[in-house]
Amino acid sequence: MILGDLHGRPGDASPEPTAFLDEVAARYPDAVSFASGRPAERHFDLDAVHRYLRRFERYLADERGYTDEEIRRTLCQYGRVKGVMHELVARHLWQDVRVEADPEAVVVTAGCQEAIFLVLRALRADDRDVALAVSPTHAGFTGAARLVDMPVLPVAAGTAGVDLDELAAQVRAARRDGLRPRVCHVMPDFANPSGASMDLATRQALLDLAEREDILLLEDDPYGLFHSGGTKAPALKALDTRARVVYLGSFSATVLPGARVGYVLADQPVAGGSFADRLAEIKSMVTVNTSPIAQAVVGGKLLEHGCSLELATTGERQTYQRNLYQLVDGLHARFADDPDITWNTPAGGFFLVMTVPFEVDDELLEYSAREHGVLWTPMRHFYGDGGGNRQLRLSFSGVDSRGIEIGLDRLAAFLTDPAVRLGRPASLLPG
Amino acid sequence: MILGDLHGRPGDASPEPTAFLDEVAARYPDAVSFASGRPAERHFDLDAVHRYLRRFERYLADERGYTDEEIRRTLCQYGRVKGVMHELVARHLWQDVRVEADPEAVVVTAGCQEAIFLVLRALRADDRDVALAVSPTHAGFTGAARLVDMPVLPVAAGTAGVDLDELAAQVRAARRDGLRPRVCHVMPDFANPSGASMDLATRQALLDLAEREDILLLEDDPYGLFHSGGTKAPALKALDTRARVVYLGSFSATVLPGARVGYVLADQPVAGGSFADRLAEIKSMVTVNTSPIAQAVVGGKLLEHGCSLELATTGERQTYQRNLYQLVDGLHARFADDPDITWNTPAGGFFLVMTVPFEVDDELLEYSAREHGVLWTPMRHFYGDGGGNRQLRLSFSGVDSRGIEIGLDRLAAFLTDPAVRLGRPASLLPG
Repeated sequence: MILGDLHGRPGDASPEPTAFLDEVAARYPDAVSFASGRPAERHFDLDAVHRYLRRFERYLADERGYTDEEIRRTLCQYGRVKGVMHELVARHLWQDVRVEADPEAVVVTAGCQEAIFLVLRALRADDRDVALAVSPTHAGFTGAARLVDMPVLPVAAGTAGVDLDELAAQVRAARRDGLRPRVCHVMPDFANPSGASMDLATRQALLDLAEREDILLLEDDPYGLFHSGGTKAPALKALDTRARVVYLGSFSATVLPGARVGYVLADQPVAGGSFADRLAEIKSMVTVNTSPIAQAVVGGKLLEHGCSLELATTGERQTYQRNLYQLVDGLHARFADDPDITWNTPAGGFFLVMTVPFEVDDELLEYSAREHGVLWTPMRHFYGDGGGNRQLRLSFSGVDSRGIEIGLDRLAAFLTDPAVRLGRPASLLPG
Repeated sequence: MILGDLHGRPGDASPEPTAFLDEVAARYPDAVSFASGRPAERHFDLDAVHRYLRRFERYLADERGYTDEEIRRTLCQYGRVKGVMHELVARHLWQDVRVEADPEAVVVTAGCQEAIFLVLRALRADDRDVALAVSPTHAGFTGAARLVDMPVLPVAAGTAGVDLDELAAQVRAARRDGLRPRVCHVMPDFANPSGASMDLATRQALLDLAEREDILLLEDDPYGLFHSGGTKAPALKALDTRARVVYLGSFSATVLPGARVGYVLADQPVAGGSFADRLAEIKSMVTVNTSPIAQAVVGGKLLEHGCSLELATTGERQTYQRNLYQLVDGLHARFADDPDITWNTPAGGFFLVMTVPFEVDDELLEYSAREHGVLWTPMRHFYGDGGGNRQLRLSFSGVDSRGIEIGLDRLAAFLTDPAVRLGRPASLLPG
């Protein structure tokens, strides 16, 4: 039968894994969810969507000198493959990331996921090409790599956010095997799923390594603006003097996921232009161009704040910071005396990781949802090689203060449930 | 150098070929363009975009019973991979295409191009898999096939819109060579680029052939509503009792290209659901989901017209019909006495094809733009195997009445230009 053999299932490697997790969440709608890494909905504003659209129209008229006809054409017609808000992306990159970006090297994409896909599609020329990724790895990267049949070699995060010795060793071993390691995926700030960040020295050493070993770095930065105060090391791209970094940006957490607008800055020179031009050629075969209506919504919010998303997201930043503190304080209050339960304290972002003295898997998650009313994500979903078996990811972005308190109590009940604590297989737990 | 070898350039196989054609158009902004297959801009209305958004919000409240919070979540948050306007797509399919569609078998995509990509990505499991396509072929199909490294075997259009004997022969030859022919791309109504349509008997025979030879048909139907009166044969999908047809829909010509919303109806059963579910798994790795803001804009226009796009696009249909008649009448007035110049008369759509007594290529197009101020598309771009050398595509969708008249005069001057008519290589034409 013609539909009997399809391209390998991406399986549980969706940007927010997995179909199974969604299904558990749907079956237990009253469970508190520390599983979903979605932005807080209290900041959504549908009236603002209309206002942003109008603001972008005014920008086209006032700053670009467009006629009404040109404005209509820009927003309604087929248009520039690389996008129509590229100038605003470049201003934002300077304001918020201290990156001087050529707007022509920006490709605005249908969400950051498309940007990941385009980069991997371009770099996977034949079956010698492989990618690397800090492990645990954002599932959207693993999934896109699978779509282009590109293996991903894991590199341990270690204590610095990336184990540089292992990265170099992986690159060299791959070359010895006749493979071409092309790119390493990194999330230097508040990584998904680990919550880890890299310090400045690690970033500089990573850039040196990329130059020495001749690989690209794919810097994935959806959470960089959601730091919990203090000083943050510059983005890799802000330190990149040798065009080793392809930078991925998302407007999902900062503006709204429903716009599905992200971008990639790819200023590497290639024959006849920049790497961005090659990505745009591929994009023209995938989505043609990113909805200019959606770009206008995002562009309007940028314009309302002088293109600074740092300014535009003060409310969001407070929400995530407060949630992080409340979660960490609550964990401390409940588990400080339990030496077998530990967690990290990220400096921002959406996620932290707990380590527990027993194996956690999807079955145990279902037990947790059913018996204790609390959801989280088994970390094993983010490892390609069997790691994370005794770890779970807690997301604090989409819950409110009351939810966190209730969720913490339920988590405590789950983690001290004798049936769980004995470490027996989840299938043998009471039903 | 790490960027020295990238995935094969899609080359000139973009949905509207090519980068070169865009460049020529940009260099000669005063040229009349019969090259671009873009929708007429006179029907764009930015105020309506806001109205459509509000209309979709009301639909969620009134028909779906959503609370304000649920409406905000639906439009602003991450959401259902298969889309949030699937019920409206199903209603439209019944109203306009006489297809009874299960909304769960619809995947709303970031433009129809993404739908093509998803289908080919799913069907290309390994390097034995090949596609077929009626030739000349929509460049978006060829380009997407190249992105997934899937060869496309051309099938002549013949006089019926598809040469059924050749299709069967190609399928059998491919199987003898150890290949797996999976799907044949067809545009039964007013095809891009040929303008050709299939009659009812051909459609029925094509469906029988697909069943007999065990292949899928990918029915690509962006122009079906733009018939010039008269009776139109039903869509293949409306005749499909054996789930052989995967149906592609576009809202670019009917609502607006700037929304970038299309869809695929894929109701073929596969293990654990329908083919649509497998396409959604892939989509979650490409764009995650289609912007619900963009879907709401399209959904709002559907709702304003009881989900009938036939009713919603009476103005557009008149425009395209009038343009077609004016172009065909104008060609007749100018070239009826020239036996070496012929053209077809499509029953609708955006395109017709002229045959001329000399070779046409990109260089000759540039000469036409420079010396005569008129643009068209060399048909050779739509052939994988060297056809169409003496043909050019004229698009009548994006020009207005005055533009058509001026363009026709310029086309006549170009086609009777002695330097052109002598058939010498374009590089030797006067500069």
